[in-house]
Amino acid sequence: MSTLIKNGRIITAEQDYIADIYIEKDKVTLIGENLKNQADKVIDAKNKYVIPGGIDVHTHLDMPFGGTTSIDDFESGTKAAAFGGTTCLIDFAIQAKGTRIRDALDIWWEKAQGKATIDYGLHMIITDLPDAHMEDMSDMVNEGVTSFKLFMAYPDVLMVDDATIYKTMKHTSKTGALVCMHAENGSVIDLIVQKALAEGKTAPIYHALTRPTTAEGEAVNRSIALAEMAGAPVYIVHLSSNDALEKVAEARDRGLPVYAETCPQYLFLSLDDMGKDGFEDAKLVFTPPLREKWHQDKLWAGLQKNTLQIVSTDHCPFCYKEQKELGIDDFTKIPNGGPGIEHRLQLLFEGGVNEGRFSVNRWVELISTSPAKMFGLYPRKGTIAVGSDADIVIWDPEFEHTISVHSHHMRVDYSMFEGKKIKGNAETVLSRGEVIVENKKFLGKTGRGNFLKRDAYAGAWD
Amino acid sequence: MSTLIKNGRIITAEQDYIADIYIEKDKVTLIGENLKNQADKVIDAKNKYVIPGGIDVHTHLDMPFGGTTSIDDFESGTKAAAFGGTTCLIDFAIQAKGTRIRDALDIWWEKAQGKATIDYGLHMIITDLPDAHMEDMSDMVNEGVTSFKLFMAYPDVLMVDDATIYKTMKHTSKTGALVCMHAENGSVIDLIVQKALAEGKTAPIYHALTRPTTAEGEAVNRSIALAEMAGAPVYIVHLSSNDALEKVAEARDRGLPVYAETCPQYLFLSLDDMGKDGFEDAKLVFTPPLREKWHQDKLWAGLQKNTLQIVSTDHCPFCYKEQKELGIDDFTKIPNGGPGIEHRLQLLFEGGVNEGRFSVNRWVELISTSPAKMFGLYPRKGTIAVGSDADIVIWDPEFEHTISVHSHHMRVDYSMFEGKKIKGNAETVLSRGEVIVENKKFLGKTGRGNFLKRDAYAGAWD
Amino acid sequence: MSTLIKNGRIITAEQDYIADIYIEKDKVTLIGENLKNQADKVIDAKNKYVIPGGIDVHTHLDMPFGGTTSIDDFESGTKAAAFGGTTCLIDFAIQAKGTRIRDALDIWWEKAQGKATIDYGLHMIITDLPDAHMEDMSDMVNEGVTSFKLFMAYPDVLMVDDATIYKTMKHTSKTGALVCMHAENGSVIDLIVQKALAEGKTAPIYHALTRPTTAEGEAVNRSIALAEMAGAPVYIVHLSSNDALEKVAEARDRGLPVYAETCPQYLFLSLDDMGKDGFEDAKLVFTPPLREKWHQDKLWAGLQKNTLQIVSTDHCPFCYKEQKELGIDDFTKIPNGGPGIEHRLQLLFEGGVNEGRFSVNRWVELISTSPAKMFGLYPRKGTIAVGSDADIVIWDPEFEHTISVHSHHMRVDYSMFEGKKIKGNAETVLSRGEVIVENKKFLGKTGRGNFLKRDAYAGAWD
Amino acid sequence: MSTLIKNGRIITAEQDYIADIYIEKDKVTLIGENLKNQADKVIDAKNKYVIPGGIDVHTHLDMPFGGTTSIDDFESGTKAAAFGGTTCLIDFAIQAKGTRIRDALDIWWEKAQGKATIDYGLHMIITDLPDAHMEDMSDMVNEGVTSFKLFMAYPDVLMVDDATIYKTMKHTSKTGALVCMHAENGSVIDLIVQKALAEGKTAPIYHALTRPTTAEGEAVNRSIALAEMAGAPVYIVHLSSNDALEKVAEARDRGLPVYAETCPQYLFLSLDDMGKDGFEDAKLVFTPPLREKWHQDKLWAGLQKNTLQIVSTDHCPFCYKEQKELGIDDFTKIPNGGPGIEHRLQLLFEGGVNEGRFSVNRWVELISTSPAKMFGLYPRKGTIAVGSDADIVIWDPEFEHTISVHSHHMRVDYSMFEGKKIKGNAETVLSRGEVIVENKKFLGKTGRGNFLKRDAYAGAWD
Repeated sequence: MSTLIKNGRIITAEQDYIADIYIEKDKVTLIGENLKNQADKVIDAKNKYVIPGGIDVHTHLDMPFGGTTSIDDFESGTKAAAFGGTTCLIDFAIQAKGTRIRDALDIWWEKAQGKATIDYGLHMIITDLPDAHMEDMSDMVNEGVTSFKLFMAYPDVLMVDDATIYKTMKHTSKTGALVCMHAENGSVIDLIVQKALAEGKTAPIYHALTRPTTAEGEAVNRSIALAEMAGAPVYIVHLSSNDALEKVAEARDRGLPVYAETCPQYLFLSLDDMGKDGFEDAKLVFTPPLREKWHQDKLWAGLQKNTLQIVSTDHCPFCYKEQKELGIDDFTKIPNGGPGIEHRLQLLFEGGVNEGRFSVNRWVELISTSPAKMFGLYPRKGTIAVGSDADIVIWDPEFEHTISVHSHHMRVDYSMFEGKKIKGNAETVLSRGEVIVENKKFLGKTGRGNFLKRDAYAGAWD
Repeated sequence: MSTLIKNGRIITAEQDYIADIYIEKDKVTLIGENLKNQADKVIDAKNKYVIPGGIDVHTHLDMPFGGTTSIDDFESGTKAAAFGGTTCLIDFAIQAKGTRIRDALDIWWEKAQGKATIDYGLHMIITDLPDAHMEDMSDMVNEGVTSFKLFMAYPDVLMVDDATIYKTMKHTSKTGALVCMHAENGSVIDLIVQKALAEGKTAPIYHALTRPTTAEGEAVNRSIALAEMAGAPVYIVHLSSNDALEKVAEARDRGLPVYAETCPQYLFLSLDDMGKDGFEDAKLVFTPPLREKWHQDKLWAGLQKNTLQIVSTDHCPFCYKEQKELGIDDFTKIPNGGPGIEHRLQLLFEGGVNEGRFSVNRWVELISTSPAKMFGLYPRKGTIAVGSDADIVIWDPEFEHTISVHSHHMRVDYSMFEGKKIKGNAETVLSRGEVIVENKKFLGKTGRGNFLKRDAYAGAWD
Repeated sequence: MSTLIKNGRIITAEQDYIADIYIEKDKVTLIGENLKNQADKVIDAKNKYVIPGGIDVHTHLDMPFGGTTSIDDFESGTKAAAFGGTTCLIDFAIQAKGTRIRDALDIWWEKAQGKATIDYGLHMIITDLPDAHMEDMSDMVNEGVTSFKLFMAYPDVLMVDDATIYKTMKHTSKTGALVCMHAENGSVIDLIVQKALAEGKTAPIYHALTRPTTAEGEAVNRSIALAEMAGAPVYIVHLSSNDALEKVAEARDRGLPVYAETCPQYLFLSLDDMGKDGFEDAKLVFTPPLREKWHQDKLWAGLQKNTLQIVSTDHCPFCYKEQKELGIDDFTKIPNGGPGIEHRLQLLFEGGVNEGRFSVNRWVELISTSPAKMFGLYPRKGTIAVGSDADIVIWDPEFEHTISVHSHHMRVDYSMFEGKKIKGNAETVLSRGEVIVENKKFLGKTGRGNFLKRDAYAGAWD
Repeated sequence: MSTLIKNGRIITAEQDYIADIYIEKDKVTLIGENLKNQADKVIDAKNKYVIPGGIDVHTHLDMPFGGTTSIDDFESGTKAAAFGGTTCLIDFAIQAKGTRIRDALDIWWEKAQGKATIDYGLHMIITDLPDAHMEDMSDMVNEGVTSFKLFMAYPDVLMVDDATIYKTMKHTSKTGALVCMHAENGSVIDLIVQKALAEGKTAPIYHALTRPTTAEGEAVNRSIALAEMAGAPVYIVHLSSNDALEKVAEARDRGLPVYAETCPQYLFLSLDDMGKDGFEDAKLVFTPPLREKWHQDKLWAGLQKNTLQIVSTDHCPFCYKEQKELGIDDFTKIPNGGPGIEHRLQLLFEGGVNEGRFSVNRWVELISTSPAKMFGLYPRKGTIAVGSDADIVIWDPEFEHTISVHSHHMRVDYSMFEGKKIKGNAETVLSRGEVIVENKKFLGKTGRGNFLKRDAYAGAWD
């Protein structure tokens, strides 16, 4: 099988030039002017951008939460991702308390294999780390699971204490793995939540109002301090507020290996989008919650200045009906999460490139190159170069589109960005050389996605 | 009983002028030029400074710690304080875990009554705060115990968790009391300490080397965040490092009611003073420990800029013989603390005024006025004004003195500042109008000191 | 002549206590409880504050500007000041280009003598500094003119170049005098103004719109750099914007002797108060101009944190009729300046104390104590202490008042703060022991005010 | 003519992969795995890095200064550059005061044509800008001279005033050209220099001691403020101190288009290298001068964090004999400048990559990609991509070398970095597909270099 992409404007995190790309089997083997090579398939990319496929490093497919399960599994979730130009994702396996982390890996492989339509990796969530199991972390790294997520929130469920965090980081400082941190002070939030419930404040908006940005900033600062003492890098997930951003910026100014991602919901939505009558707000219940609108500008600036290196989705979809409704009488019962896997590239292109905040190169860097470099997938993924996997998106910068539940491919019964107008779309999508999206159709086979053994975090890659 | 102080240069936190002071019984009743009033005693203060007596808001007299007890009790400790120009102190009562805080107050009253030779107040250390006992905190405020100390260090002994801190602060936000925080991340320090011991690092210097400044900075930041969320002020005790200082400065720049003290040992001593052969370093084992020398300049700058408002001593004396020696084979067994109650005014006068870092007014502010204002004793204490308690020091700015165990009045068998040369001394000391130190003799009666019912923290006093 | 002030609540920059004050001739000679002294006059100050008289360090009385003269002379101006509780001011003598600064001093003495009703000092504005005249600066210091103002704005009229600024500062670094800086980049502003006029933008609001805050921030930074290189302190006058404030804060954080004042107009008015039809905006044409409203909060915060040490008025009154109207067709012809000398204490009391931004002590510090200390008048002025001049204001904190042209005592035909409601008023005003304002009447004799020989800036007074 | 580079590790600002490069005539036309194409020349780059040729955006070849002329002309200078792996440079044409800038361009073309051995562009130095000549700036942009340099130093020679700077920037804000700024406060420096000379301080080291870092920081801040008001970007040349760096960082944090370069001499040399006996220090007389050593770490950190985007050389060589000696009795007569064009890539590779400060990608970015993007040469230069000029360096990362006057190719009779040991060298150098350096021989023809018409600065490229 061979493919020739003709006349496209090739855009990577650095480059911007017009050339032809020849793909043999699953890899790019040739880039040149007016290639004459025979190919099984020829794609004309004239006036289109040719970019490396998007990489979403934060998704929760088929994840049990509060008595229900996130509605997209590895099949529907990866298909929706592909429609949006994402050709690789990293999901989270979750250690059940009292079990070994190895078991969690097996469970998540089970969920993914035979279903995933694009390549995927796994992070491991650690909820419990008896000294006797410390060695299991090394095994994970050998299996290509080179990042561990810890929670400073959700006491009694997922939260680990400072000693556990420090021990984990001390371990990763030796293996080269990376700790991903959910940074919110769960102890305080719990007290605030209990007080709200006691006062009869049960509506969905109280989910947002009981999680102050100060609690996020505090936890980010603490996780950085723990990482500094352990001599390890740390990666803050779903950073949502300026409080948190300032802590990351300050650490980076001191030269520490501190990194962070944000998500489209924090860039495009705010508390102004909540406050609706009835239970509608439940659609926007995820953690961290939406913030006051002014935080958005700060987050965009963080993307511009590389204080934030990555945009992921934290895709964790629950239907409004039956799932979100579990919390109709009590916001703490609403499954936390929102659907976003499909529109990350579009939203960032609109808000970043079309609105003049950053270059098209920076866009590629945020949605593909940095994710690949941070999580041990580069240069296999994340760029267009000879020898790299042919995970390639033909992007039509002129295509106009309105985001809607009626047209999206996620299984969820609403859209967080309903009605948002976008210019720019993933027209054709290749995964390892195979066209999987074309003419708005999904052409890939279910289960064709491979598990990716990732390298360890490579040290100061930036 | 009446006293007339003639011709002195009266110096307060703001003023600097020459006048006579007339004291009737225990209070200043008249300030004027060339007063002709008859007085039982006349003191000529020509060419001397006349300042409000020093207030030391951080002492540990007669305190049990690690199987022994701090060697100065309320008698010897207050006498040594008086010799140094300190006429008021605030000590710490300690709640024993599982008991009510009221009990601790009774125990400490017992320790102090009949012994204290100067006036004293008490802070309350909370180690345990079941919801059922929350109300006891209000009782304390009514008793004039308007400040509560919490520990973020010493797990299993004194450390409380974030939820307890938040609940305490939430309570003080209503009563107007002030939380005093020992800010170090005890969980991480414990792991570092265990590792050091496991590696056979048992010498006293490892006490210092196992308590990184990052652990202090982190805890300061966390305590500020908790205070901000609770809507309460917070006062950081014995701040020792630039890491911590920057967090306080940042909070104050944002206008938060965040305050901090440092102590002479952090201003004059550093790791350079450790590293001696044998067990000598044990004399400098206290918590937080000594830091690298460059932190000193930052702390002095913090005093200049009012990032730090107060200098206290954290006086907690243990003899080298028999007490410090408890840890001869294991630094974790060394009783933590050092003697300092006697030389605070001298050291600050030398390093601050004589060395040109700040004015004599700022010196008075740091050692008397701010302590009084912060802890609800002003204007009764902390200034020289009509109506105030006649706690007055006649300070000879020219007197030269060398600090030494051989001349000090503390009970401890060594001096942290042995050999340090000083210009400036408390020549005559009055407590409530009574001359208690004169001609290098202590004239006051044992037990003459009164317990001070303090007002609640008054809000933004600065 | 003797006066006894009974029962007042005496408030200084530090203190707050109730006592009686006895004044003999022009000085405070006694402060005490229930003084029984005979006095020629007894004032009952029960329930009133007794504060040191206000000191306004920035006024322009009887000043020629753009073909007219500021409408208050030393008689009307000092009377208005006194009604507002200001008992001392420092005005500016202006060197005419090509003349010696000594001549300017003589001219301003002429203006003031026989007219001033309160004590006054003079700063010297230098417009021209040939090397041959450098020594004249030393003479000024000996005359008690210990501060020199330079302009970085108004090219060809008042502006001096960087070399002149540096030379002046180098000189003051030896004499201990203080350079006061009007900091705006006049060269750039002139180009922006020319462009506006060329585009037909002649209305008064263009005065404000052609003077960007960046031009102020730049000049503040430059003046600080020049001062740092010269080893001299610098005092920024009428600081109006956050851009400028940040530069001062940054310098102070580095420990430099950099100081700044702001004025009530920048704290209470903004561009939102401009944009009126017709020529009304001319009433608010002064330099620096009004800024966007958000700067106000920053300036208030600067007062709270002591980034700003003083509030002066920059009182420079021109009537709307005939004076302001000179610029009816061209905003550059409008005489720059606004009237404010009368309401400084009231406005700061309202915005600072009544609105909870700072304590009554800080209020006294900003309007009296710091001005006295900064400009070599302390402790003669700026405090209430035995031996100080009896410049004292009996302040009624409960008096309610509406600022209006109809009730003010300045000669100008409008008020910048028309309609502003205030609580707090100078009920009785003493200057050197003499009651000059009582029962809303001015009782002092014209010309009774003395020229004040000021000490040189005392070095790091704070 | 065609060339095939086999097996090299291709490194760009983003990428790092192994592939073959095929060059037809002057351009890269094909990149692929195991290319079988016939080629006139085949280069085996196994185990070598293949990088885009270096671009030095700051050189002064054949430049008159203080009665002499920089000793490298466009022939010797470009050859030395090529030996060091630099295949493109941008030199400065200088407007003589009172003439039109067009004339300067003709003079510099004359200097370069027939001599340059690599491609070159020109910046234009403006010394004089009467309104009548403003339009000439637009002509320059059309000629491909899209950057203008201004001096804030050297009064009466090159220095322009703030009004001229603002007018120039206002103009570039329309044409898209970029102002390059020599930022030092020349007025103050001149006074300090005069004082030093008057005190008999004539030795070379006084060149450094009379140019405080504060004067650089001030000018950087001022140039940024002027740029901000003009709505134009600004590029600070040869940034040498932390004072200046902080101003750039602060502006970039606010999102302003502010950029800066530093040079190897500021990264590797300091005042510690001066202070030699006799006249030796003259070899290190350039402007800005060397700074205290601690600034080096700050500059390296600036390169890491992208506060600094480019490293250039400011190559301006004068022989020690006869040229530097002009100032033997008076440091102000020493021609300012040092030789550096040949060792930029080596030094940055050593200090950056070998010493672990940044990645090999960042190294390429600093010495080639960012220069090309900033100055309108990208993607023609600055990357390795299909369609780009084949300016390519085969870099041997293992080659060990000691910098010395005895082996360098510059005409100057000393080396600033004499004895410095380096690992890494430009083994083979191609300019537009032609091998110009191979086996330590220069193979290119004199005069083969082309003048480059550069695009205007493209807006926010980063």
